[in-house]
Order: sequence, then structure tokens, then C-alpha cells
Amino acid sequence: MDAVQTFALGVDIGGTKVAAGLVDFNGTILFQTRVPMPARGSAAEGFAAVQAAIDAVFAARPESRANLAGIGICAPGPLDPKTGVILNPPNVPCWRNFPLAAEVQRVFGLSAHVDNDGNAAALAEAIWGAGVGHKNVFYATLGTGIGTGIVVDGRIYHGRTGSAAEGGHVTIDYHGPVCGCGKRGCIEALAAGPAIARRAQERIAAAPSPSKIMALAGGNLDAVTTETVAEAFRQGDSLAAEVLQETADLLAVWAGNIIDLLEPDVFVFGGGLAPLMSGFFPRIGEQLVSWCVNQRFAEIPMVLAKYGPDAGIAGAAALCCP
Amino acid sequence: MDAVQTFALGVDIGGTKVAAGLVDFNGTILFQTRVPMPARGSAAEGFAAVQAAIDAVFAARPESRANLAGIGICAPGPLDPKTGVILNPPNVPCWRNFPLAAEVQRVFGLSAHVDNDGNAAALAEAIWGAGVGHKNVFYATLGTGIGTGIVVDGRIYHGRTGSAAEGGHVTIDYHGPVCGCGKRGCIEALAAGPAIARRAQERIAAAPSPSKIMALAGGNLDAVTTETVAEAFRQGDSLAAEVLQETADLLAVWAGNIIDLLEPDVFVFGGGLAPLMSGFFPRIGEQLVSWCVNQRFAEIPMVLAKYGPDAGIAGAAALCCP
Repeated sequence: MDAVQTFALGVDIGGTKVAAGLVDFNGTILFQTRVPMPARGSAAEGFAAVQAAIDAVFAARPESRANLAGIGICAPGPLDPKTGVILNPPNVPCWRNFPLAAEVQRVFGLSAHVDNDGNAAALAEAIWGAGVGHKNVFYATLGTGIGTGIVVDGRIYHGRTGSAAEGGHVTIDYHGPVCGCGKRGCIEALAAGPAIARRAQERIAAAPSPSKIMALAGGNLDAVTTETVAEAFRQGDSLAAEVLQETADLLAVWAGNIIDLLEPDVFVFGGGLAPLMSGFFPRIGEQLVSWCVNQRFAEIPMVLAKYGPDAGIAGAAALCCP
Repeated sequence: MDAVQTFALGVDIGGTKVAAGLVDFNGTILFQTRVPMPARGSAAEGFAAVQAAIDAVFAARPESRANLAGIGICAPGPLDPKTGVILNPPNVPCWRNFPLAAEVQRVFGLSAHVDNDGNAAALAEAIWGAGVGHKNVFYATLGTGIGTGIVVDGRIYHGRTGSAAEGGHVTIDYHGPVCGCGKRGCIEALAAGPAIARRAQERIAAAPSPSKIMALAGGNLDAVTTETVAEAFRQGDSLAAEVLQETADLLAVWAGNIIDLLEPDVFVFGGGLAPLMSGFFPRIGEQLVSWCVNQRFAEIPMVLAKYGPDAGIAGAAALCCP
């Protein structure tokens, strides 16, 4: 008799670490571990790190192996989710057209699935997290960048080659600041972490004020970071509040575009900045009045993701769920 | 024995006319007719026009009735495609929460389906037209406004309440000109017919030139229309060419947003301005280099719709196809 499949192993590959964890079919992470990722080494060295992380999970939870549905992996794109090949991710240069899913499958004798981190995290939120009960889930991760994922009827929307959904690069101001991707006015260039720090710096430079931001940055304008702004806000600083409110207003313009085009059932915000920005969800809702054709937008909830720093492991595991 | 269903009846309702036609399951329009639409009359008068148009098709092609799959109707939104209720369309004020599908079904004893014109036309292009053979079809109608429709795997993507896909109101410049919808910098406000005329007027006013546009407008700047610009372009006028190239460049920014987010397999452009703008599809493709993160965009074809002025009838009929 076949063993009942009740677990999935999730692997989250970044530019500096590989995290791996054992996740049950309720989305609970039962165990996790991490190893360094030699992203600038050889392809074999990169794969050895993945193998070591998976081995560490099996070593800690040997009994899980018999009941494992498979190994899910989320990695930086571009990649091909259909074939499981990693194409040419800028921050994991060790792999170029590397058949990651096939290698994992060969070494461990288990089915393997690969997707990018935004898509995987979106799926975890849709089936286990803040998007449960909704048909169309739009997920956005707010951090150093802005990544997105679309889940329709419990399945990731991939588009033609699997590159969807790069919603962080939807421009709302084609005259705006240049984004890391080369486009202008992408929401990532306007509202992600570095843009929050930049806008705070610009405001302080334009009109020096007794903001806590400068004190927290040791009086050095160049040392102002997103975290400085966040901490100043928590301490009641008004300039920091203005910068974050402006961030919310920019996110509202962008969310209006998404809603007019796709009308999802729910917006789920994850990533490092989501807890901070969740205090501004009501502000985003107010601003949407001016940025949606679809006047039923007010019914679309904006919620904080269930998974925080573990979104990658949960998302990767979700790729294996039936 | 049941008759074989090989036809659908398509009804296209606008602010001034109701067109109706008999369409076979290859998408060929076999017969069509139209009657005036008393959009500002009573609800019953509005429905009587729909009934008259359908009756006229049956009168001309009585033999079709036995083989009819149903009656499809496209109408201005907002409407609910699930229930077939017309909500509160600005240019068809005769109907407020009017159960159009149910009424047609009751009167004619045939199944009836209702959707908005962009969605219906997208479906006709996907199953019978320029989108055939593609899994994800993105359709845009360029005219007085810009409407869009998304077809995935042969089915219209509706979103939460059926309001998707209002892609004409995706803003690419949140500081830009105010759109009829109240938002700023929607692609409709920048690149649809009235915006083309406006940008031509602005260029002429700023730097009077011997453009053919003014001659065609009888020397009256206020009389410049999209058609004046189009005719001047056909006569080789360079200012008209500049205005249309600028239109293409704006459409490229917008198409880049759609591609980054959704990565469709094909863009199909319909509507009154599509034949004119089709000469600029190569220009849009060139500009996309700067406006797409997804560098595989160049593989995404931009094609002219199969259905021109008959897109509504074909689209409505497509709603009935299995």
C-alpha cells in the first residue's frame, strides 16, 4: 500500500542562502534549516548547497520521507516553471540554463517543482494563508523590490513563458525615476524600500527639519534607510509618517490599475515592509476612490500575508500540493 | 432527436442602435440587421428594440431557429455577466438593474448570455479571429475609448464581479490629463481618438505649421478630429505622422505594463482606429524594448482584429458557443 502523502519539502533559494523546511498539508512549517548559497560559485557548488539543505531536513525528520508529496523550490527568476530550468537570474549567476527540477528529481527520486518566489508565496497565501476562501488572489511582496503573483482558482497564473506576474514593474509614471529594470516609474522604483529611503532623503534635503530620521541616521543623510524611516515613524515622527503615507498613495494608484484590469477578490501584501505598510491599508482604500473605474473596489479586502520571512519555504512546499 | 446546434444569434446593443445577426459556428456572419435604440426611453421601449432586432433576424432566416444554440448579447457595462443583469450603463440610461438575459430567455425560449462589448469581442477573436491558436489572448479596441478583454484557455476572464478587464483605464502617468472616468493618465485619456485630436491641436497651437490637418479642418483648430489627423496622415502629412507615432509610443508603455503583468500570447487590436494604428505595430514593438522587464516580449505578436464594425455581433454570438 502506498504511503499517504501528507508533507511537502519546501526549498527557498536566494542570493546568499538556501532555506529548506518540512511543511504539512495544512501549511504548517514543522521544521526548517538554512545553509549558505555560493551564488557566485560553480553550478555544481550551487546545487551542492541545495542538496545539503534538503539532506538536513531529512536528517532531522527522517520519518517524513515516506509521506512526502515532493520537493518544491522557489528561486529568483527568470526561470521556466514548466521545465524547472533556471535561466539567468542576475543574483544567482552560478546557474545559466540549469535544470534544477530535473537534478533534484534525479538525486532524491522525488517529484520536484520550481517557480519564482512571488508566484510560490502567492500560492501559499491562496491555499493556506490570508487568501483562503477567495477565487482570484493578487499577492504582492513589499521589500527591497516589489514582486507579485496571481492565483486563479487555486492555480498560479503563469502567462506565455512563465514570466508573469511582474506586477512590480507596472509603471504609473512613464516620466518617473528610472527603475533597476530600465523602465521608468515602475511601482518598485517609487514605493519599494530604497524609494522610501530616497524620498525621505529628498524631503529632508529640500527642507531640513528636526525629524527623528536624521537623528536615527547619526546626522548623515546618506545613512538614511527604509529601516530608519520605519523606526522614526514608530517613534511618532511626522516626516516619516508623510513619507509612508505618500508610499500608500502611490500603491493606491498602482492597485487601482490592477483592480481595473483584473478585479481580484483580495489583495494580500507580504514581504518585509508589509507589516509596516499594513497600518496604511485604510489610506490605500480611501485613495482607491480616485484610482478605480470599478466602483465596487471598496469591497476588495487588503490584508496582511500570513507568512512573513517563511513565505519562501511555505510557497515552495505549496507547489507540491494537490 | 434534437436538432444540431450550428448557429448563434448575436445582439450588439449601443447607445443609438441595436444590431443583430446570425452567426455560424465558424464565426461567419450570415445575415445582419439593425434598429434604432431608444436608450433614453423606458426600460420596456429599450427592450422592444432588442426584441425587434431579434425578430428581424428570425424573419429573414426562419430556418435557423431550430438549430440555434442561443442568443448572445453584448451591451455597455457595468453589467453582471453571471446573472445577465444590466446595472447602470451611462449611455443606456433606460435600463437600471434590468434583467436582460432573463427577459430574452423568457420571450424567445432560448438560452441567453450577456457580456460587455470588450469581453465579447475578445472571445470572438480568440475562437474565430486573429487570436486563434493562442492560449492567452489580450484584446484591445481602439476608438473613442479603449476597451479590453482577456481570454484564457477559450474563456473570458471576468474577475470578481465581472467588471474585468477595464484595461483602458490603466494609468501610465498619474500626473497626466484627467480621463472621462475621473482618473488621471489612463491610456484612454492619452491615446484614444479624442486624445489624438487633442494632441494634434496642441502641437498646431504651439507651433503653427503648414500641416494638412488645418486645411482638412477648414482652418479651424477646434474642428480638428481624429479623422482629420488620419486623413492628413494618409496624405503624407508629417505632423499627423508625429502625432500617431506618439500614440504608438504611449500604447507601447501601456502594452509593456500588460505584458509584464500578464504575458499574454498575443495582442489583438480592434476598433475603429485599429486599421490606422496597425501601420505602427512595428513601432510599438521597437518601443517595447524600453518598456518590458520580460525580454521575451518580442515574441508576442501584435495583430489586427479579424472583426471590424461587426465585432459586437460576432462577439455576442461567441458567448453562445460551446
